[in-house]
Amino acid sequence: MKTYNLPLLAMAAWACIAWPAPVPSAAPLPSWNDGAAKMSILEFVEKVAAPGSPDFAPPAERVAVFDNDGTLWAEQPMYFQFLFMLDRVKALAPRHPEWKAEEPFASLLQGDVKAALAGGERALGAIMMATHAGMTSEEFSKIAGDWIATAKHPKTGRLLTEMVYQPMLELLAHLRANGFKTYLVSGGGIEFMRPWSERVYGIPPEQIIGSSIQTKFELRDGRPVLVRLPELNFMDDGPGKPVGIQTHIGRRPLAAFGNSDGDLQMLQWTAAGPGPRLCLYVRHTDAEREWAYDRASSIGRLDKGLDEAKAKGWTIVSMKDDWKTIFPPENK
Amino acid sequence: MKTYNLPLLAMAAWACIAWPAPVPSAAPLPSWNDGAAKMSILEFVEKVAAPGSPDFAPPAERVAVFDNDGTLWAEQPMYFQFLFMLDRVKALAPRHPEWKAEEPFASLLQGDVKAALAGGERALGAIMMATHAGMTSEEFSKIAGDWIATAKHPKTGRLLTEMVYQPMLELLAHLRANGFKTYLVSGGGIEFMRPWSERVYGIPPEQIIGSSIQTKFELRDGRPVLVRLPELNFMDDGPGKPVGIQTHIGRRPLAAFGNSDGDLQMLQWTAAGPGPRLCLYVRHTDAEREWAYDRASSIGRLDKGLDEAKAKGWTIVSMKDDWKTIFPPENK
Repeated sequence: MKTYNLPLLAMAAWACIAWPAPVPSAAPLPSWNDGAAKMSILEFVEKVAAPGSPDFAPPAERVAVFDNDGTLWAEQPMYFQFLFMLDRVKALAPRHPEWKAEEPFASLLQGDVKAALAGGERALGAIMMATHAGMTSEEFSKIAGDWIATAKHPKTGRLLTEMVYQPMLELLAHLRANGFKTYLVSGGGIEFMRPWSERVYGIPPEQIIGSSIQTKFELRDGRPVLVRLPELNFMDDGPGKPVGIQTHIGRRPLAAFGNSDGDLQMLQWTAAGPGPRLCLYVRHTDAEREWAYDRASSIGRLDKGLDEAKAKGWTIVSMKDDWKTIFPPENK
Repeated sequence: MKTYNLPLLAMAAWACIAWPAPVPSAAPLPSWNDGAAKMSILEFVEKVAAPGSPDFAPPAERVAVFDNDGTLWAEQPMYFQFLFMLDRVKALAPRHPEWKAEEPFASLLQGDVKAALAGGERALGAIMMATHAGMTSEEFSKIAGDWIATAKHPKTGRLLTEMVYQPMLELLAHLRANGFKTYLVSGGGIEFMRPWSERVYGIPPEQIIGSSIQTKFELRDGRPVLVRLPELNFMDDGPGKPVGIQTHIGRRPLAAFGNSDGDLQMLQWTAAGPGPRLCLYVRHTDAEREWAYDRASSIGRLDKGLDEAKAKGWTIVSMKDDWKTIFPPENK
């Protein structure tokens, strides 16, 4: 396996919002300020979807791929899938008395995430496998689905599924209203996202591409199950994203949306096709309403990608300037 | 990697027909004789798709998975993807003078397939990788698509894409007319099938699940490519089929269609869901119009699967008795 900068860390993230899909309004993208970013989206969609356009693309070719963490929902103060892991370690601790004396679990159980992660990739891998492997795919789906139903953000107190970006929900809806098929292409776990992605994003299970551990078919008392094994199968991050897209879709996307260097190869792959393409980076520029970070961040670092986006004229969205609202209104 | 009975052999197969999708007629499945098999299909579709049925399944859940070799097209005298490999070895030989003295290529180039395959799995793997790896995914797609456009069956002389089963084309059409999404789930190569599966079966690239070799994202002179590497990535056969289905679809199928023991786990996985399920085996019983083989065949062996189908009351189709015609009319 290749070594990435944030190899397993990228597998810790994302969840969802109990929010109805935005009703398509007469004017699309209502939460977007008028400006170059909004204009580039509307113009691209018009070009490829308007009958008679010289760049018209048949609906089957209208594929749009979205990163999740930091692009569709927040990723601070840590990937949401990592919050899931922390909660699972606590929940499983009574069954693992040995964890009290075993790192990284001992530190985690004392609430010291930093000390736990001092063990680097190995520590993260141990936490990942202890919480993601050893059950069937159906059992894991229920665990993740139950967890996300109540999991709240440590800073805002909102459901994690409400920490999604309202302007991006509108973008998903606008693309679908124009015949696009929308896919998630995330470094996060494919089976972690499936239990809620349709409810939150309107993206069904068969349109989720993500990282995965290996699974094995077994008959248990005559009943077939897929058992989740503590071995990495596929890492859907960085150069893995175009690989995952080709494996699952077999078509090159017309549009790709990301927020970090881990999305760069996906945007490059998308941009290299013929005809109009939309490559868009979301920049976290709003310390008041969300967070502000890019080149120096350990989570969602946007450095090389930002340079390339500028050099190639890709669309760069500034949360602060381009978005009227960040999160959906609270559903109280 | 696990060892399967026919590990790499199963990766050698299938191609397609330049035939328009059958026009839905007033009476579905016109090439099927009236009988238990046809009845079980029609009843199942009615149960899950008719509004108001107590077993009604929403369209999104109507997933049908089809094996390819021996289920949608013929697999005798050898998997069609193996014919592709043989032709590619011949085409590539001028660039590989060393093959004249190197098995399994030396025997292949002398037309002695049996001697070439005496080297077993290792020999087959060498042929596979020499013909499937070392180019980009786009290059391979063109090679496979160009080949299938003219490749003919060694016995019938018909295009391989016309060696498909007319009754199964009608079954695909009937399922789709009733809101099903149809998938290929084949031991054959995913990228070998994609260039022609939509034209021949009406199944688009994103609904193909198959075996694969590893690929790697690279920038070549600034242009992104996916390079095909000589290493197995995923074996979509036997216990791999439910794994492939879960990875790509994330839903359990309502209906599964196969012809060999390599499809058994896919049928078991399908059958184990709640509500009505359709599990169907095609039996090769027609030595005159097609081929007759099952328990003793090295290709498409149907032995354990046949026992289980009988024990569980799955649908068993006899080509000889259930099908009025086998192949579509010749398109001259």
